Amino acid sequence: MFHHSANLQYAVRVDTPDPQFAKLLQQAIGGVEGEIRVAMQYFFQAMGARGDDKYRDLLMATATEELSHIEFLGHAVALNLEGAPVTVQEDAAKDPLVNAILGGMNPRHLLSSGLAAMPVNANGVPFDMSHVYATGNIAADMMANAMAEGSGRVLAARLYNATDDKGMKDMLSFLIARDTMHQQQWMAVIEELGGLEAMMPIPNSVPESHEATEHSYYFLNTLLDQDAPEGRWTSGPSMDGKAEFSVKQKPEPEGQKPSLGRAKPNSGAQKEQM
Amino acid sequence: MFHHSANLQYAVRVDTPDPQFAKLLQQAIGGVEGEIRVAMQYFFQAMGARGDDKYRDLLMATATEELSHIEFLGHAVALNLEGAPVTVQEDAAKDPLVNAILGGMNPRHLLSSGLAAMPVNANGVPFDMSHVYATGNIAADMMANAMAEGSGRVLAARLYNATDDKGMKDMLSFLIARDTMHQQQWMAVIEELGGLEAMMPIPNSVPESHEATEHSYYFLNTLLDQDAPEGRWTSGPSMDGKAEFSVKQKPEPEGQKPSLGRAKPNSGAQKEQM
Amino acid sequence: MFHHSANLQYAVRVDTPDPQFAKLLQQAIGGVEGEIRVAMQYFFQAMGARGDDKYRDLLMATATEELSHIEFLGHAVALNLEGAPVTVQEDAAKDPLVNAILGGMNPRHLLSSGLAAMPVNANGVPFDMSHVYATGNIAADMMANAMAEGSGRVLAARLYNATDDKGMKDMLSFLIARDTMHQQQWMAVIEELGGLEAMMPIPNSVPESHEATEHSYYFLNTLLDQDAPEGRWTSGPSMDGKAEFSVKQKPEPEGQKPSLGRAKPNSGAQKEQM
Amino acid sequence: MFHHSANLQYAVRVDTPDPQFAKLLQQAIGGVEGEIRVAMQYFFQAMGARGDDKYRDLLMATATEELSHIEFLGHAVALNLEGAPVTVQEDAAKDPLVNAILGGMNPRHLLSSGLAAMPVNANGVPFDMSHVYATGNIAADMMANAMAEGSGRVLAARLYNATDDKGMKDMLSFLIARDTMHQQQWMAVIEELGGLEAMMPIPNSVPESHEATEHSYYFLNTLLDQDAPEGRWTSGPSMDGKAEFSVKQKPEPEGQKPSLGRAKPNSGAQKEQM
Amino acid sequence: MFHHSANLQYAVRVDTPDPQFAKLLQQAIGGVEGEIRVAMQYFFQAMGARGDDKYRDLLMATATEELSHIEFLGHAVALNLEGAPVTVQEDAAKDPLVNAILGGMNPRHLLSSGLAAMPVNANGVPFDMSHVYATGNIAADMMANAMAEGSGRVLAARLYNATDDKGMKDMLSFLIARDTMHQQQWMAVIEELGGLEAMMPIPNSVPESHEATEHSYYFLNTLLDQDAPEGRWTSGPSMDGKAEFSVKQKPEPEGQKPSLGRAKPNSGAQKEQM
Amino acid sequence: MFHHSANLQYAVRVDTPDPQFAKLLQQAIGGVEGEIRVAMQYFFQAMGARGDDKYRDLLMATATEELSHIEFLGHAVALNLEGAPVTVQEDAAKDPLVNAILGGMNPRHLLSSGLAAMPVNANGVPFDMSHVYATGNIAADMMANAMAEGSGRVLAARLYNATDDKGMKDMLSFLIARDTMHQQQWMAVIEELGGLEAMMPIPNSVPESHEATEHSYYFLNTLLDQDAPEGRWTSGPSMDGKAEFSVKQKPEPEGQKPSLGRAKPNSGAQKEQM
Repeated sequence: MFHHSANLQYAVRVDTPDPQFAKLLQQAIGGVEGEIRVAMQYFFQAMGARGDDKYRDLLMATATEELSHIEFLGHAVALNLEGAPVTVQEDAAKDPLVNAILGGMNPRHLLSSGLAAMPVNANGVPFDMSHVYATGNIAADMMANAMAEGSGRVLAARLYNATDDKGMKDMLSFLIARDTMHQQQWMAVIEELGGLEAMMPIPNSVPESHEATEHSYYFLNTLLDQDAPEGRWTSGPSMDGKAEFSVKQKPEPEGQKPSLGRAKPNSGAQKEQM
Repeated sequence: MFHHSANLQYAVRVDTPDPQFAKLLQQAIGGVEGEIRVAMQYFFQAMGARGDDKYRDLLMATATEELSHIEFLGHAVALNLEGAPVTVQEDAAKDPLVNAILGGMNPRHLLSSGLAAMPVNANGVPFDMSHVYATGNIAADMMANAMAEGSGRVLAARLYNATDDKGMKDMLSFLIARDTMHQQQWMAVIEELGGLEAMMPIPNSVPESHEATEHSYYFLNTLLDQDAPEGRWTSGPSMDGKAEFSVKQKPEPEGQKPSLGRAKPNSGAQKEQM
Repeated sequence: MFHHSANLQYAVRVDTPDPQFAKLLQQAIGGVEGEIRVAMQYFFQAMGARGDDKYRDLLMATATEELSHIEFLGHAVALNLEGAPVTVQEDAAKDPLVNAILGGMNPRHLLSSGLAAMPVNANGVPFDMSHVYATGNIAADMMANAMAEGSGRVLAARLYNATDDKGMKDMLSFLIARDTMHQQQWMAVIEELGGLEAMMPIPNSVPESHEATEHSYYFLNTLLDQDAPEGRWTSGPSMDGKAEFSVKQKPEPEGQKPSLGRAKPNSGAQKEQM
Repeated sequence: MFHHSANLQYAVRVDTPDPQFAKLLQQAIGGVEGEIRVAMQYFFQAMGARGDDKYRDLLMATATEELSHIEFLGHAVALNLEGAPVTVQEDAAKDPLVNAILGGMNPRHLLSSGLAAMPVNANGVPFDMSHVYATGNIAADMMANAMAEGSGRVLAARLYNATDDKGMKDMLSFLIARDTMHQQQWMAVIEELGGLEAMMPIPNSVPESHEATEHSYYFLNTLLDQDAPEGRWTSGPSMDGKAEFSVKQKPEPEGQKPSLGRAKPNSGAQKEQM
Repeated sequence: MFHHSANLQYAVRVDTPDPQFAKLLQQAIGGVEGEIRVAMQYFFQAMGARGDDKYRDLLMATATEELSHIEFLGHAVALNLEGAPVTVQEDAAKDPLVNAILGGMNPRHLLSSGLAAMPVNANGVPFDMSHVYATGNIAADMMANAMAEGSGRVLAARLYNATDDKGMKDMLSFLIARDTMHQQQWMAVIEELGGLEAMMPIPNSVPESHEATEHSYYFLNTLLDQDAPEGRWTSGPSMDGKAEFSVKQKPEPEGQKPSLGRAKPNSGAQKEQM
Repeated sequence: MFHHSANLQYAVRVDTPDPQFAKLLQQAIGGVEGEIRVAMQYFFQAMGARGDDKYRDLLMATATEELSHIEFLGHAVALNLEGAPVTVQEDAAKDPLVNAILGGMNPRHLLSSGLAAMPVNANGVPFDMSHVYATGNIAADMMANAMAEGSGRVLAARLYNATDDKGMKDMLSFLIARDTMHQQQWMAVIEELGGLEAMMPIPNSVPESHEATEHSYYFLNTLLDQDAPEGRWTSGPSMDGKAEFSVKQKPEPEGQKPSLGRAKPNSGAQKEQM
């Protein structure tokens, strides 16, 4: 069960409201790299967690923290919108500079939300829950989480560069820090479970008879006029420790030329196809 | 530039067409765990790759292979739909057993595609390109790719269990194998670049002054009535080797109680809010 | 800031797992009438609340409760999926009755989530955050909330009828009850602020000069071969107490016939349009 | 059956074409607060109306009016786009001021529609029909309609403030007026059916035995460090007149700690979860 | 301006209600081949029509007819749902046959709409207005319209085969007929404007200097191991009468190998990319 | 099976990077008129092609070419983004002119992709695969393809006008040329199969008894106050050569007034509806 306390997890200060930066910040709320996504992803993973219950607790604890991140980011968006003129009659709106800024803000911050945060990204596209990755496989889920935190920290770092407001920089340095912790804690689960080598290939529970292992360890070079790019993936032991990497240069197709023959009568095709 | 040769990458055989399994297979084409996603994800990552060009080649080579996976899966869907009755007058349609099967097929395989594959998932929801994760950060992208292949292999393993058609099992064992290779090759890139410890936290190029590092290594226990779940993430060296993990039990909010005050005149609020 | 405690807000018991009912329950999680929607709607309204801060608290308190509803519903979905066969080899899967049930379950519960809840509706369509209605106008928002709870209670009542599992009926009777409270509490806010008459028309802050009030109180009968349906809306005092309702039968258009003239050169039109 | 007459419902005049305002106006066409939504919502409610047929007629009559609103708004968008330069060679395009305006217009008005209205919102996001709320419950639907008109009028009022074009202000004052009527007419249906008290809780047809009424009238205070915000919802008679409101401070969870145990073999989980 | 008259454009009769067929019929309402799409497509094309005003009238007249098609299809869906049991207690619901049918119906017809039509397709996916194709180019739009009617008639023909209800077959034979007329009327516009040869390539107003015409008339054979499929497109006069078709076998890329070099500092990339 | 060679199909040169033009170019990648759409549409049509296999080859060959178009357009987007400042500290960002440009760029090019192409349109809306039209009817599909290429060429022509960069104009003149070929090649298939008259109405395989042919050749004039717009569609032989066009002026509805009666008990409606 969830509870709420009155203060924000972290202090939010905006020295100079900037409606255009409010638009950018939306990416951290409603973007695929944002906080709604991780909050919901960890929440749904927790609800579907099977195995040791402590992972369920871990997921739920961090889902709860991410909800608090949405909360202070939402406040930051609203504070950045404080200065925006709401009518063309206002003096500010007559200033061409302000006009230029307004040209760059999200018009729905004015028209739809009344100067407040929305669950949308920096293009105004609403967040869509298909981005909640939760497979029931703990290793796949941990990778998805580390990935989400990695891209989230990339975003936070770019937002940090996109403002020179001291308050905003302070808040973003906190977000960058928490994303540091979170991406590590998910990889820590993988280490605790035995490490990447033992976890891979995900899922590590596939019976050997279900896999055509003769195809499991070669890099397929589909490049016609180049040799395969050489690297860790072309030779040496595979990451799961079970085989050696190799390369299949200029691969030949192994299947048939597909053909479906004529269309059935009454299938809605043209007569000429039947 | 892309080219095409006539035969499928791998042979597709369907011993007993099964329209319901055709619906399930769609998840491997148009689902978030499916082949359109990885093909497009690697393609867009390749187009945005900066740094050593060999990673661009690696991404493009595998993007190209994934296009070939879409191709043979699409053929498998069509072959599974071969037997489906297209009119209620057909004998097959009068058979209650067949009817039950039809009740479980995707009706748009009949109504919209004329017994062929569609770029949708097992619920008939079209694939949406927001799932193409490409950040311009090679470590974030490699994690996204390993994650995609991990969840793809989980899916392929489940599809393998959901059919007893020998031809389909054979094709899926090939997919399982290629997903094994692909998830490893992306992690191999990370190893080649110095390994996870050196890569993390992603991005590893954030200047230290941009991060409130006092918040970077503690697990925040937002659980009111439990201690933090203990594990690799609560003590010991952090995964990036820079600090020690710790726990913040029963965290106090560090921010203010947010308040936005009264609404501006002409902002579309009620009089009572102004 | 958010916190979490270990137990569910309400006990969840499933006497007979039913994967088909799990699919139906998803509507209460990820449907437009569901709990993700209200949780997020109240949360975003709270973050944008201007005026008396107690309404912000009210919204946040209930947003927090709705998160707990997602949690127990998610558990209910997982429990209903416990019995589902995961391979066609299992005995259960060979039973034609079970097969019929499986034909009616959401295949992604098997393929994607590993027998757990997802943030999707009963058709498997992911929830999309455009359904978070938050305008910054407290009366519009309260109406949106009462509406959401009304349609949520309609859904809960229908789900109650769709199962005869005692545990599920018990849980749903709790949901029905909370939806009773919630729809009333939002209307109570309107009453506290002065009542519907004083609140309407929303927003009640539009200067009179901005409204063509000669068009504000007639019902426009666009029906060619019928008189206007008579009722409370065709005569008597208007709901805002400012005028009398009337009817405009067989309305004549008041505008011009629209015409855009020829297309501009270089605008991408055909020559014949220029 | 529908019919059309040549003139617009209301005259549209644009004194000074403004491509940026064309972008804003799109919210009134293809936004969730816009006219496509209400037209389609009333249309689908009408088609599903059960009970007294006059409500079907009422809904269809107003659906028809809303189609006419789309029509004149669409014309207004096109007229606002008349001045936009279509090539960078045009003089206008060289003017930095014009350039600034262009930076703020929707580029798809130029690229995709050829200077005409589109069924998208002010961010260019296409309208999606999931926003057509139609439950088959007349009270829920009337609330949804009053809500839609309330948020529509908030939008129209904000658009009025965002332009100083006399023609546009005149058209918007008409829209504001019609939204006044429409929100009232839907509440008038509720009054005619017996009033809010009799209608609530929606649906008012739930048998008492289906509701855990001991949970129907308390406000749940999930706020850890504050008392419940006091108001009309914490004491006094409930809005449905059936009970007294109360408060549950510091609520204890009533359910179990959820646990799903180990994962099934062959379910796609990791070995460590089984 | 729009108007409405009470009777349906065409009589709707359902002899044997069939909830599963109601699901299929939804494709004709909310599918991409359905009536909402054409109604809205012609409406938006009409609003953006430039050139001879009679094409605007033609489009608006048919948009209006398509609205009437939605109306009678919506009624057909509701009539097919009449028999569906709404509680598991009803006798019908205990019949395994009925159960099988229910397994195949759209559960949201029960849960969300209360046994009425919805603006969704046969998978329950809501219609999304991005499918309204309206370019401002009359030839492109007429092609889009003929295409929409062609795929609409394919759908109607398949639906005709999917039912043996006499009433439904009668209604669908009317839809098939109107789709016949509509696809022809849009091609008739092209003929009237001079015919396909004169209209093509669309847009026919591109200045010759804007086109690299040396690339305008060859078929590019990207097939590695096959000659180009021969046909009308490989030799003989082009369809626009301006040149001869030819084939480019085994095409060589004409561009450079793309490379973006190193990543910029502060761009969020890894150090190793800079 | 697919293959890749290193060089781009066509050379890409950007003389003056322009982040705002990068945003516009996205429409040609991820817009409904763009290259992802045609690549995927031809690919899925190929996979579902029934009848003469050469059409499958034709479709696959061109699908493959379109993938190469995505590739060079993606490179063009990245090159246009080269100059964009990534931090507000950079000199460029302090220049008000640059600022104005930045206000018009897609912020996610900075925040999400790290200065690279994305699978989104000019509004930042991700491409969604529902736009892949593939019906299994070759004539419907060829019309869809010609339409897609027609609207694609309209777009390319508009993009040509929207830049004065010589390199970009050169690349776009190539795209315009290929769109010329492609729209013609699809119409050539129709001609080869017998021409439009023989192909229409699509599908040409509907048994006559399935069509109410008395409704197949009249134009329905739903305009109340105007005669039908006269043209090729109101008289003369129909396009399929089977009948004469006529007009139905002032059409009377032929159906009943729809009414659904009272709501069923337990259906979630209000008591007053039952």
